Amino acid sequence: MKLLRVGPAGSEIPVVMDRTGATFDASGITTEFDGAFFAGGGLARLAAAAGRLPSIDITGRRLGAPIARPGAVLCIGMNYVAHAAETGSPPPAVPILFYKSPNTVVGPNDEVLIPRGSSKTDWEVELGVVIGSTARYLPSREAALECVAGYAVSNDVSERAFQLETSGGQWSKGKSCETFNPLGPYLVTPDELGDPQDLRLQSWVNGEPRQDSNTSDMIFDVAEIIYQLSQVLVLDPGDLVNTGTPQGVALSGRFPYLQRADVLELQIQGLGRQRQVIGQA
Amino acid sequence: MKLLRVGPAGSEIPVVMDRTGATFDASGITTEFDGAFFAGGGLARLAAAAGRLPSIDITGRRLGAPIARPGAVLCIGMNYVAHAAETGSPPPAVPILFYKSPNTVVGPNDEVLIPRGSSKTDWEVELGVVIGSTARYLPSREAALECVAGYAVSNDVSERAFQLETSGGQWSKGKSCETFNPLGPYLVTPDELGDPQDLRLQSWVNGEPRQDSNTSDMIFDVAEIIYQLSQVLVLDPGDLVNTGTPQGVALSGRFPYLQRADVLELQIQGLGRQRQVIGQA
Repeated sequence: MKLLRVGPAGSEIPVVMDRTGATFDASGITTEFDGAFFAGGGLARLAAAAGRLPSIDITGRRLGAPIARPGAVLCIGMNYVAHAAETGSPPPAVPILFYKSPNTVVGPNDEVLIPRGSSKTDWEVELGVVIGSTARYLPSREAALECVAGYAVSNDVSERAFQLETSGGQWSKGKSCETFNPLGPYLVTPDELGDPQDLRLQSWVNGEPRQDSNTSDMIFDVAEIIYQLSQVLVLDPGDLVNTGTPQGVALSGRFPYLQRADVLELQIQGLGRQRQVIGQA
Repeated sequence: MKLLRVGPAGSEIPVVMDRTGATFDASGITTEFDGAFFAGGGLARLAAAAGRLPSIDITGRRLGAPIARPGAVLCIGMNYVAHAAETGSPPPAVPILFYKSPNTVVGPNDEVLIPRGSSKTDWEVELGVVIGSTARYLPSREAALECVAGYAVSNDVSERAFQLETSGGQWSKGKSCETFNPLGPYLVTPDELGDPQDLRLQSWVNGEPRQDSNTSDMIFDVAEIIYQLSQVLVLDPGDLVNTGTPQGVALSGRFPYLQRADVLELQIQGLGRQRQVIGQA
């Protein structure tokens, strides 16, 4: 199954897409794809209702993020060997955790705003993982994967001066600017996606390739990230975990940072494609 | 006015306390002290209803955090000169921002759990600031203070090994463990509190003094923190900002870290007192 939220920002309705691409209004099952929905067996109810939901035509309509505003957005830094190298850092021995403000989450094709005073706004295509059930002191990697509701393309937009030069060393200031986390187009359930560790992920600026890697290159895979985080903190249903970005960002020095009117596109195999026009706050 | 939430965890009801300490059931005004309440003029409605709300006896009842779960918990690090010194760091040139997971917020007298595998669980008494209206590219320090709904005692509990030794340098891992942000007993509105930069703040472990300082020693005051953050990100109504802790934590080497059955107490002038018994996760 694929889950989408369709409509104006703040008034999205829940929609489900089957493997043929047909779309159905899920409003009769739930008002929101949120933590309560995932915790309450919502995905099973949705699957059981297949074939009985009304068709809905979403052509040309705005997509919201495929989940309601998360309770928390957790990010793993430096999780691809080649990206760690391009930033001048050795590969980490443990998953590096930071947060971004949950109010950064926007639709997959919404405008991304360069913050005032910014000269280093950068892109990061990432495999986003949405939590479906509480993860607390999990016993195993297998139990960690059972906590996953689904996967989505996540753009961990970053302002590198705010993150690294005027931050005192803590990265969140460069990660939490308005519009800095486009998510979607849809959330894909684990059964439909298959192996999350063999997905090509790519980004482009104005049609020119930037990142092109595979989730097989992660240092800590999805199961390991969730397992290790659960030994320290509690992940709640509806939380979003951004699993890190591969090489090919502007911070490498190989590409210019984003400018107003640039077109940013991101894609992950099986998870669809995003397109953002860059604006100015 | 003082705002409280009273009752079992997850089923608290809103209560208001006047300057005499009398308490009134605010359920007729709102179901929650949350972002929507603050954004929708809830404090003014509550003030207008003074004298018409039913009395409620809260003696012996559990206190929840005085606000519903925040959309984000923002923390400012190293914001007292003497605390920066005791951790071996120079005073920062800019406010250092990190986040803790919003699911760490608990009642002011709830049990605090030492995480599994922890040997360095530490206390941090802090002036907590709750946002009442959206803060985005504010024009001035004065405008920043107008965004404040109220103030509360906040305990930014920290696991120092998770924060500093096994974190890869990002602090959030040692800040986001379960039960790591007791808040309250109440939220005090700015008109009732007076000057937030002249408040004695103290902590004790098993009755022995630990921290004893004053908010006048902050490097960046409340107005400056909110003003500066608003130039980078958007603060939403209901968000919590922890403004940093003064010297006297265990990280200094002068005191042992917390152990099971320790009793931790924290107090800020005008904002009341917390008491937590330390447990084990």
